[in-house]
Amino acid sequence: MITGKNYIGNSISAKGSITFKTFNPLLNAENDPIFYEASNNELEDAITIASNAFKIYRKTSGKQKALFLNTIADEILALDDLLIKTYCSETGLPEGRAKGERGRTIGQLRNFASLVHKGSWVEASIDSADPERTPAPKPDLRKMLIPLGPIVVFGASNFPLAYSTAGGDTAAALAAGCPVIVKSHPMHAGTGELVASAIIKAAEKTGMPNGIFSNLNSSGIQVGLDLVQHSKIKAVGFTGSIKAGRALFDLAAQREEPIPVFAEMGSVNPVIILPEALQRNGKSLSKTYAASITLGTGQFCTNPGLILGVKSEELSAFIQDLGKEILQIHPSVMLHPNIIGAYEANKAEAISQPNLEVVTQYNGEVQPNFAKQMITTVEGKAFLKNTRLYQEVFGPFSMVIQCENIHQLEEIISSLEGQLTGTIIAETNEIEIHSKIIATLQNRVGRIIYNGVPTGVEVSPSMVHGGPYPSSTDSRFTAVGINSIKRWVRPFSFQDWPNHLLPDELKNENPLQILRTVNGSQSSESI
Amino acid sequence: MITGKNYIGNSISAKGSITFKTFNPLLNAENDPIFYEASNNELEDAITIASNAFKIYRKTSGKQKALFLNTIADEILALDDLLIKTYCSETGLPEGRAKGERGRTIGQLRNFASLVHKGSWVEASIDSADPERTPAPKPDLRKMLIPLGPIVVFGASNFPLAYSTAGGDTAAALAAGCPVIVKSHPMHAGTGELVASAIIKAAEKTGMPNGIFSNLNSSGIQVGLDLVQHSKIKAVGFTGSIKAGRALFDLAAQREEPIPVFAEMGSVNPVIILPEALQRNGKSLSKTYAASITLGTGQFCTNPGLILGVKSEELSAFIQDLGKEILQIHPSVMLHPNIIGAYEANKAEAISQPNLEVVTQYNGEVQPNFAKQMITTVEGKAFLKNTRLYQEVFGPFSMVIQCENIHQLEEIISSLEGQLTGTIIAETNEIEIHSKIIATLQNRVGRIIYNGVPTGVEVSPSMVHGGPYPSSTDSRFTAVGINSIKRWVRPFSFQDWPNHLLPDELKNENPLQILRTVNGSQSSESI
Repeated sequence: MITGKNYIGNSISAKGSITFKTFNPLLNAENDPIFYEASNNELEDAITIASNAFKIYRKTSGKQKALFLNTIADEILALDDLLIKTYCSETGLPEGRAKGERGRTIGQLRNFASLVHKGSWVEASIDSADPERTPAPKPDLRKMLIPLGPIVVFGASNFPLAYSTAGGDTAAALAAGCPVIVKSHPMHAGTGELVASAIIKAAEKTGMPNGIFSNLNSSGIQVGLDLVQHSKIKAVGFTGSIKAGRALFDLAAQREEPIPVFAEMGSVNPVIILPEALQRNGKSLSKTYAASITLGTGQFCTNPGLILGVKSEELSAFIQDLGKEILQIHPSVMLHPNIIGAYEANKAEAISQPNLEVVTQYNGEVQPNFAKQMITTVEGKAFLKNTRLYQEVFGPFSMVIQCENIHQLEEIISSLEGQLTGTIIAETNEIEIHSKIIATLQNRVGRIIYNGVPTGVEVSPSMVHGGPYPSSTDSRFTAVGINSIKRWVRPFSFQDWPNHLLPDELKNENPLQILRTVNGSQSSESI
Repeated sequence: MITGKNYIGNSISAKGSITFKTFNPLLNAENDPIFYEASNNELEDAITIASNAFKIYRKTSGKQKALFLNTIADEILALDDLLIKTYCSETGLPEGRAKGERGRTIGQLRNFASLVHKGSWVEASIDSADPERTPAPKPDLRKMLIPLGPIVVFGASNFPLAYSTAGGDTAAALAAGCPVIVKSHPMHAGTGELVASAIIKAAEKTGMPNGIFSNLNSSGIQVGLDLVQHSKIKAVGFTGSIKAGRALFDLAAQREEPIPVFAEMGSVNPVIILPEALQRNGKSLSKTYAASITLGTGQFCTNPGLILGVKSEELSAFIQDLGKEILQIHPSVMLHPNIIGAYEANKAEAISQPNLEVVTQYNGEVQPNFAKQMITTVEGKAFLKNTRLYQEVFGPFSMVIQCENIHQLEEIISSLEGQLTGTIIAETNEIEIHSKIIATLQNRVGRIIYNGVPTGVEVSPSMVHGGPYPSSTDSRFTAVGINSIKRWVRPFSFQDWPNHLLPDELKNENPLQILRTVNGSQSSESI
């Protein structure tokens, strides 16, 4: 049952006077439930109990945290059809996608559960004392990662499950030992409430302290701004637009005590098609890329928004083929009228630029909120001169840049802002010949892909989802995969601390049998 | 020979019109050499060549980088007496300290050399492909840490060798694969130039690209501000005051592309003396702490500026003893007239506060620039009410807080800003009884010490030097030890990349024989 209320820890609460509804883009109508924005008192309460919960949760064992995370996964599955139906009604996305994303969410929770159950992730490190050392005795030093404190998570509009309420940021923070306050995304507030209820049930079932999780509704920006500025909040996770992400980053940096904001923001994900590969595979590439550009109605942060090639007959043919292929794909619905509104506005802004040529646009009749895909093209020289063409058009839109030559292609790559991904379509020998282009691209991105598409972000330890600004606010971390836990922890040293009072991770006897660095060597033995 | 000029890569250059001299605080007179501030053109040149050098240096092998770092160490040793004499003349510090700090600097360089020679530090991680997986094939993903780009390092006034020109920040950045531009500290510009000459010699001997290192003189702030704001600079390391560190952090955060600033700033390093331990060891504690407070004329960022105990006869006796012991120590010289000027001003400001009582101050005659040590005391209630008493007095000064009871002691700890260290003087059973105090302290510091002193920062893998703001600007990193390399790197993923074009660290055959995470397990085998 969706109540429309906030979760302040395990209490449901609706003290605010502002209300809003979610929207079904397929039906082009509001959904029934009324959501109550969190009031300032509710926000304060959520932060106070989070801060108190941290005192207990920071010392909670990895095994208990694992049980909590696995129970969240179980409780999300137990929501069953209600969750899937709510998800679809608030996004327009098909049931298959809803179930796929639920699977990914569950998988992430279980991955983090496994990580903290094993326990070696804390990077325990022990340097033994040497009391005989001259001129000064060497102390005993033991280090491990510890949680930062209460974290605020802003969910993503385009991933209502996997990067929202119990998504990657929340799972990583809870695994780290940090309480989480979610600023629920207003476009899928019902999905958010259901998932929040699952987290709260799991917290109660596994005896977690009240306050370890809260879910605050808000259709505006004030709740988010207040959360980020609150002195008891110690870090922020965000997925969304550059404008919003940067605003939060700026606020956090201006605090008396600045705090880290990890914002995963926009990206145009450049794809470089080198000549030989184009010659050999042009036809199939046009099909592959038409599919990638329109996947999920283009609503992925890894959507290929920029394709670069060197002017040639083959490139002209590819552009035409891509234009034709994209017309073969039936338009699909976007998440919300605001999203399609922005898509249409950004598209119009792009094609109003001099020298940008529309190759094809879907021109059939479509239902309300359905996006008409578009392929455009521009000459390299014109692109370089016009920074407006560098802006992301979030949706099923892509721009093919026809470069004069390889040199200009490299110049364009080096002029790009930071990107989540870069893709190279090439024959193997072309990578070797054009190693300078690869190096330039590598310097602008977090992940480089060979002969594939950027869409489809594998959740695995070797994934980097993040990259130089503005694809993220701190390229030193990833937002996807188990290593994303490192955003929410800090190293901590104990010097000459009595063995029996150390955390289990650092005790001589290594009761958790974790892998540690002992005097420079890896070991899971006791010392 | 000290030329007073800047190193713009391997060119010595003096195009600026502003000059300055360093100062010998023992002689109370300026040293002879004239230093030329870097002009804006020189700064631009240094950044341009650093940016070009990065294109080569980022791909330089660990073994070559190790050779470079070890050669820097050799060249610093080859400076021999000239370096030691210059150091002493610019700081007033004794020869023993100069040699000790040189040893530490050499040790750090060699530690990083060993780290990158072995190569496992890049956290290589491989997740194999599964082309048969449904619904979608699993890609091959391989991840490792790569360098950020050109780094600016601001040296510390109080560590002319170990945390300046070729100090921890520089060694870590060069080990990571980042070119370094040092904004030389004006108080020891001669020492800085000598060390810079050693780095440049080492770079030339080992065939490193020109621009990998530059050393810019400046007695004011503009050179530093320009460096931090330059779009080609990708991160900043700083050691110094909260005011200066925060100013750099703010500038970096306000850039179009914000960059990380790791600033290691002030700290009062609270020491909690619990009652039983005080009763048992009061006398020897007063001796130990008098020595720690005056070590290096109190010019350490881990100097114990705040000592907390619960009101008792024993605490009163300890305060008197500490006051007496500190008078036994002969005053010593501070680094520079500006430093002693600030010490005297901050001390005067502190003792002008109501309720702060001076226990003892050295009252004998002293030479110019010598610091008179001081012990003060205040009641817990008065301390809590007056935030001015929370400010660090950099120098041989400490304040003993007499708390009404353990509860008030905990209240004070939780009211403190972030600290580099916290120390507990206690009998073992007292730690268990007062676990709440320990937990509160742990939440405010980067390192916790049992029955010791905070001064003396061991350079070892398990050391954390850093902590919650304002002891550092990002508690997620340490400034000391090999893990400080992580400040200057980011993770990077290759997806489906041809094996022979991968970096050696990620190739199937594991030619470097490094430790990697392969499909979740640690291995140094080939795959």
